[in-house]
Amino acid sequence: MIATPYLLFLGDAADPLAAKVAQGIRDWRPDYAIGQFRLPGCKADMRLPDMTIEQAVAAGVKTLVVGVANRGGVISKDWIAVLVQALEAGLDVASGLHNLLTDEPELVRAAEANGRSLHDVRVPSVDYPIANGERRQGKRCLAVGTDCSVGKMYTALAMEREMTARGQKATFRATGQTGILITGDGVPLDAVVADFMAGSVEWLTPDNDPDHWDLIEGQGSLFHASYSGVTLALIHGGQPDALVLCHEPTRTHMRGLPSYTLPSLEDLRDTALKMARIVNPGCVVTGISINTAALGEDEARRLLDDIEARMGLPTVDPYRHGAARLVEALV
Amino acid sequence: MIATPYLLFLGDAADPLAAKVAQGIRDWRPDYAIGQFRLPGCKADMRLPDMTIEQAVAAGVKTLVVGVANRGGVISKDWIAVLVQALEAGLDVASGLHNLLTDEPELVRAAEANGRSLHDVRVPSVDYPIANGERRQGKRCLAVGTDCSVGKMYTALAMEREMTARGQKATFRATGQTGILITGDGVPLDAVVADFMAGSVEWLTPDNDPDHWDLIEGQGSLFHASYSGVTLALIHGGQPDALVLCHEPTRTHMRGLPSYTLPSLEDLRDTALKMARIVNPGCVVTGISINTAALGEDEARRLLDDIEARMGLPTVDPYRHGAARLVEALV
Repeated sequence: MIATPYLLFLGDAADPLAAKVAQGIRDWRPDYAIGQFRLPGCKADMRLPDMTIEQAVAAGVKTLVVGVANRGGVISKDWIAVLVQALEAGLDVASGLHNLLTDEPELVRAAEANGRSLHDVRVPSVDYPIANGERRQGKRCLAVGTDCSVGKMYTALAMEREMTARGQKATFRATGQTGILITGDGVPLDAVVADFMAGSVEWLTPDNDPDHWDLIEGQGSLFHASYSGVTLALIHGGQPDALVLCHEPTRTHMRGLPSYTLPSLEDLRDTALKMARIVNPGCVVTGISINTAALGEDEARRLLDDIEARMGLPTVDPYRHGAARLVEALV
Repeated sequence: MIATPYLLFLGDAADPLAAKVAQGIRDWRPDYAIGQFRLPGCKADMRLPDMTIEQAVAAGVKTLVVGVANRGGVISKDWIAVLVQALEAGLDVASGLHNLLTDEPELVRAAEANGRSLHDVRVPSVDYPIANGERRQGKRCLAVGTDCSVGKMYTALAMEREMTARGQKATFRATGQTGILITGDGVPLDAVVADFMAGSVEWLTPDNDPDHWDLIEGQGSLFHASYSGVTLALIHGGQPDALVLCHEPTRTHMRGLPSYTLPSLEDLRDTALKMARIVNPGCVVTGISINTAALGEDEARRLLDDIEARMGLPTVDPYRHGAARLVEALV
């Protein structure tokens, strides 16, 4: 687990989108986001106090989180200097970059010399078991998508927030780098060795109170040729009681696969349910989450109404209209 | 690729079953199996000439293959001594043991000193790509099972042999340790990192002649909670044109999962076909392979006839009755 709270390192972000990890932390764990650190030329702003490393330490920060993508796939000298300074001041450093912190000798030396931790959340740090398929106590909801990157993480986080606000027991379970940095914990499923994928998801969603819900971050899609195996391991390891279907309505082909069209929501419903019921015969689809960011308000409303009428399931864009109806459908 | 031919190391095999890797090589690649090496107390016999290391080198052997499971999860001192001797005599050493050859300092030193290779086939040795889902030339047949260990490797090897005997172009594609040691090449799919599973199968089954068939070794089962993700990656990376359903009729529950019953052959057919057609709309189920080892001849015949009548597909036990009908159904 990554120690909180965080100082969000925005580096020299080329634009706000480059800092989407920082934005995710700011949006979903505002209590963790105490301050930001920006280098000259930074084009992102989380509207948090700009802090020096010393100020962050004084404010109680425990970890500097790299909240920005690096340019050109290298961790620049400017960045290294700040990260070393943070380690020397007593902070841990966490990152989801492809280039690992632990591959940078200066960082490794500074971490060792100061007894601090480098968290590369792309790399599993646990020896996961092989899945045993046994039922666990507590409830689990999994977001499944017609494609990759259609809003599965957002949907699960929005449902967690809504349930927590209602006083219900709920925990978002991160299965990707951004989710892990947001919550400080999780499984980097795409980096787990094949045999242990489903077991890592069982490990992530253990026995819990009978009325507790795990809201599991989805990955990939059963219909995505590159990543479908990851998705099925998530379904079989997660043993969901409820599935929420996620979709982005303007996409013309599967992400990264120009010759593949997206499945229909009916096809996703039937296929995901079929696979989920192998491990949990009681699994049901409880709602639909549509990412309508590309549509105007009227168009979005009309689309949501149409899908809801067609599918007979609560259909919302949780970003636009909140996750209340998705949560009400669970219970 | 592992250099052939082989000296099969049987060690101090506790029983013939312990040497099933050696038996697989002996059965399926007899040209590779020049001799065997046995330690005192060995209870396995491949009916090959017993050879010293020197005799094996003189006979043209290139690699000593550990064809036996080790006891208690350690590579014993007796084994190490023989393997070092082999390396010093100019042989490579290959193994599918959980304990890696490269974790044994004596073996690493001897390999380096003599310029030889240690092949741990449980560990991927290639940086596989992410799958791109594009169609490749040539044909592919994949064995899919109601469960793990129901005869998928055997079925694919038997089909390869039958096709080769008929002068048809066919290549068995190994996806597990035993298959890799048998053929000298392949992908240890259960050890591949999640994101690259499907890509490793695309890599394994590249463009080929239009009338060439890859016979892909299956892994796991879509219905096995522990390994289903591996199976789906294999289906989506392999883009099969044909599926052969594999089943063991006396099994009372899924292997290693006492609370899970096996799916019906109809359920396997429908589910595997549904998933395969996402990447290859022309995919069809062409035959059924039943492992009848636990049944008498009459009972086996009756069962095969019943399943064939019920499913409307050629149904054979390739071990008992050959793979001819499975192969004829392909073309």
